[in-house]
Amino acid sequence: MSRVWNFSAGPAALPEEVLLQAQEELLDWHGAGCGVMEMSHRGKEFTRIIEQTEADLRELMGIPASYKVLFLQGGATQQFAQIPLNLLAGRSADYIVTGAWSEKALKEAQRISPLVRCAANTKISNFTRLPLADEIKLDPFAAYLHVCTNETVHGIEIPAQRIADTGVPLVADMSSHILSRPVPVEKFGLIYAGAQKNIGPSGLTLVIVHQDLLGMAPLNIPTVMDYAVMAENGSMLNTPPTYGIYIAGLVFQWLKRQGGLEGIDTVNAEKARILYESIDQSGGFYHNPVAVDCRSRMNVPFTLAAPALDSVFLTESKAAGLMSLKGHKSVGGMRASIYNAVPLAGVQALVDFMNDFAQRKG
Amino acid sequence: MSRVWNFSAGPAALPEEVLLQAQEELLDWHGAGCGVMEMSHRGKEFTRIIEQTEADLRELMGIPASYKVLFLQGGATQQFAQIPLNLLAGRSADYIVTGAWSEKALKEAQRISPLVRCAANTKISNFTRLPLADEIKLDPFAAYLHVCTNETVHGIEIPAQRIADTGVPLVADMSSHILSRPVPVEKFGLIYAGAQKNIGPSGLTLVIVHQDLLGMAPLNIPTVMDYAVMAENGSMLNTPPTYGIYIAGLVFQWLKRQGGLEGIDTVNAEKARILYESIDQSGGFYHNPVAVDCRSRMNVPFTLAAPALDSVFLTESKAAGLMSLKGHKSVGGMRASIYNAVPLAGVQALVDFMNDFAQRKG
Repeated sequence: MSRVWNFSAGPAALPEEVLLQAQEELLDWHGAGCGVMEMSHRGKEFTRIIEQTEADLRELMGIPASYKVLFLQGGATQQFAQIPLNLLAGRSADYIVTGAWSEKALKEAQRISPLVRCAANTKISNFTRLPLADEIKLDPFAAYLHVCTNETVHGIEIPAQRIADTGVPLVADMSSHILSRPVPVEKFGLIYAGAQKNIGPSGLTLVIVHQDLLGMAPLNIPTVMDYAVMAENGSMLNTPPTYGIYIAGLVFQWLKRQGGLEGIDTVNAEKARILYESIDQSGGFYHNPVAVDCRSRMNVPFTLAAPALDSVFLTESKAAGLMSLKGHKSVGGMRASIYNAVPLAGVQALVDFMNDFAQRKG
Repeated sequence: MSRVWNFSAGPAALPEEVLLQAQEELLDWHGAGCGVMEMSHRGKEFTRIIEQTEADLRELMGIPASYKVLFLQGGATQQFAQIPLNLLAGRSADYIVTGAWSEKALKEAQRISPLVRCAANTKISNFTRLPLADEIKLDPFAAYLHVCTNETVHGIEIPAQRIADTGVPLVADMSSHILSRPVPVEKFGLIYAGAQKNIGPSGLTLVIVHQDLLGMAPLNIPTVMDYAVMAENGSMLNTPPTYGIYIAGLVFQWLKRQGGLEGIDTVNAEKARILYESIDQSGGFYHNPVAVDCRSRMNVPFTLAAPALDSVFLTESKAAGLMSLKGHKSVGGMRASIYNAVPLAGVQALVDFMNDFAQRKG
């Protein structure tokens, strides 16, 4: 077996410790006589798993008791519809568009209701900066304000200090940076994330929702999409994605061993620092277009000054054991996603390769 | 490691060969340098996996080219809403209720539209038989007719020869017996199944739909729920449950090694034969209430004449390495789910235990 450094944007690298434990338990979980994939979700073994998983997440993120934690399906894309279906209750909602994902969220919400508004859009900058205060036009009567706190494609992250109280519930897509740093959960009405970046395998969606936002859904939406029903049923109205929840639980335990979100925050800061430094000090060989104050610590897109070198870069980096560096087709170039499970050594290997490549080809 | 015979109704036993292969490939799939859980769903490795999985399913079930195969999320329960959302187009639909699951499907469809009708209901028999021909009142203008071809809770299976053309598209929930025997796919407009019985882990939902039923969904339903959009995008509008699809693919390859659906059909027939024989020849010690012509070959509920012995039966069977035999709470007693992955030897072990238990306690 030979594992490589995996910079995939998602599904993405998982901690090797987690995979080794999953491998050991695959056919027999803790003497149960079968693996987690084969267990009834109503049995005492899986009940223990999901309860511990939720407890560990609550501890890691400091989730107040007034919030429900839901383990759902359908990814962030399903949430793009599920959020307005649950929260609009005939009202409007505001969306701030800062990249490809918040743009998709807005489009899907407008499919659900024509009352949904765009409160700000930085497309004019090619999504390389956050909106200025005077570019944001908020509706004080909106059901909620939606933001994407980390844009996976464009590599933009909203710093915590920019999260202000606007008087309406704040809804945030945190798919690609959840659990990468401490988050003031109490400032949000609803936080959601597809699992396939920092949580676990695809097919699991995490929703953290304040109890005051439950119970507003109309009676004709699909029952599985009603947050209140799912909360009442402990995410088990129907069979949940049990194996994904189990892997998420192993990831949460691994995170606790890394010192929790404070511990991983320190590592992530250093990983991002050395990668951006390599880009910025390359004398223009590499370029990241994002304003320094909102550069993502998780998704680092960059281009080569000579696009003719793109394919050489990809071939040579792959040969060097650096996987999935091709940029998203909408922005081109390269992208290194350096989620929690990519260790500092992996980013250092990437930086070493990039510096050497620039020296040889520059 | 010591694995037991697992009679769970779902999530349920998986073939040991499949789990051993998954275990071996968990950290490195075919030299990719990472496991399947960690791969981009858009990469060439996962593309190969999903294409092979679909091809194997098409081969196993003999799915005509005029049908689309979709790998979705949300389970059968999400389909209970998704089907009327896609297919009603303002019309009514007929539902035949033969047990707990078709009853839930009807209730959810009526939440979506008040035009949805119950065309027959055998609750008066405590769901122990199929409706007689003159009990079924069909609407010739219905958008579709919905049936559940195997009722997991009540242990009722609709024999293939009872599937008649009624002039409207037939929609079938096959969650708990799909792939257990050959199926005349061309008689159905849409077949759906949660994966967690005969396909793979929970969190994956299979939909097989005739192309003529695509494109009728209104524009305001969630995009992830629109079959036509999912078909156009090869089930990858958003990130699919990649690991579940991979495991399903391993299960399909295992099924091909068992001689396909004809091969497993023979084994399943014998498994069901010896278990029902043990019940019927117990002199009333065990009892299965279902009419012989519609007894399920996958889910076998039975009661003990002396309910006081239930807990002793469960304790002793567990000690004998027979897991998850407790019946569904709504019907009580016991239930043995004997899906494809439970081999004849497992059912023989159960029968031996039951015969011995009856002799000792009867």
